[in-house]
Amino acid sequence: MSDYTLDPRLEADTVRVSRLGLSELRLMNDARWKWIILIPQRPNIVELFDLTPLDQTMLTFESALAAEAMKKATGCDKINIGAIGNVVSQFHLHVIARDQGDENWPRPVWGHGSARPWDPADRDTFIGELLGAF
Amino acid sequence: MSDYTLDPRLEADTVRVSRLGLSELRLMNDARWKWIILIPQRPNIVELFDLTPLDQTMLTFESALAAEAMKKATGCDKINIGAIGNVVSQFHLHVIARDQGDENWPRPVWGHGSARPWDPADRDTFIGELLGAF
Repeated sequence: MSDYTLDPRLEADTVRVSRLGLSELRLMNDARWKWIILIPQRPNIVELFDLTPLDQTMLTFESALAAEAMKKATGCDKINIGAIGNVVSQFHLHVIARDQGDENWPRPVWGHGSARPWDPADRDTFIGELLGAF
Repeated sequence: MSDYTLDPRLEADTVRVSRLGLSELRLMNDARWKWIILIPQRPNIVELFDLTPLDQTMLTFESALAAEAMKKATGCDKINIGAIGNVVSQFHLHVIARDQGDENWPRPVWGHGSARPWDPADRDTFIGELLGAF
């Protein structure tokens, strides 16, 4: 049995979208960018190499699927992927759709300014588009 | 035959360390952080999902190996991993050793200030330690 629980800070900053095979898929509550995170549902994972090789492979597969769905749903110029975890150590992988000229382009999204919460209707529309692109 | 060639901007910013199975491993010429990049030696790769599933798996394996070697060689607090590519689109994966209180902690390294070139002797010492940790 897994003792996986989601870090409360990640939970507070995001809304649940779906469950993939290994990972929970959540949307950041920040409408400045289309920005999702994948959290492998395993306990005590901080670094990529804390996952078993099989889980690493699963995560890669799910990351590529999620990145391709984000590209398709948004038509963005570039996907940014990152596992930083300097503030919240529970392993979580960011997948962000970026466009030339978007806020803070071409610099990364992390640590820039303050989140702008989604309008709930817009958020649900985007979630529907994203799930449709998987 | 592969038509892989390294983007000249990546080449200018880095020094070659080694070749892994799929990826070229290079050290960023920026002594502010211990910072390497992996470049899959395949032509025309911009996004993770441009790689074949087998190459994605190889990249994950190499990323985890490189991250674990960086952790072992540096004793850092946290590994940061990212594929951004907003400036140089050739797919390249960053693996960075971070410590509490290092420059720009806990924010990411990308887009922050200007590189501080390595002293060549220090650089070669670190490369030796890193290769020894694989």
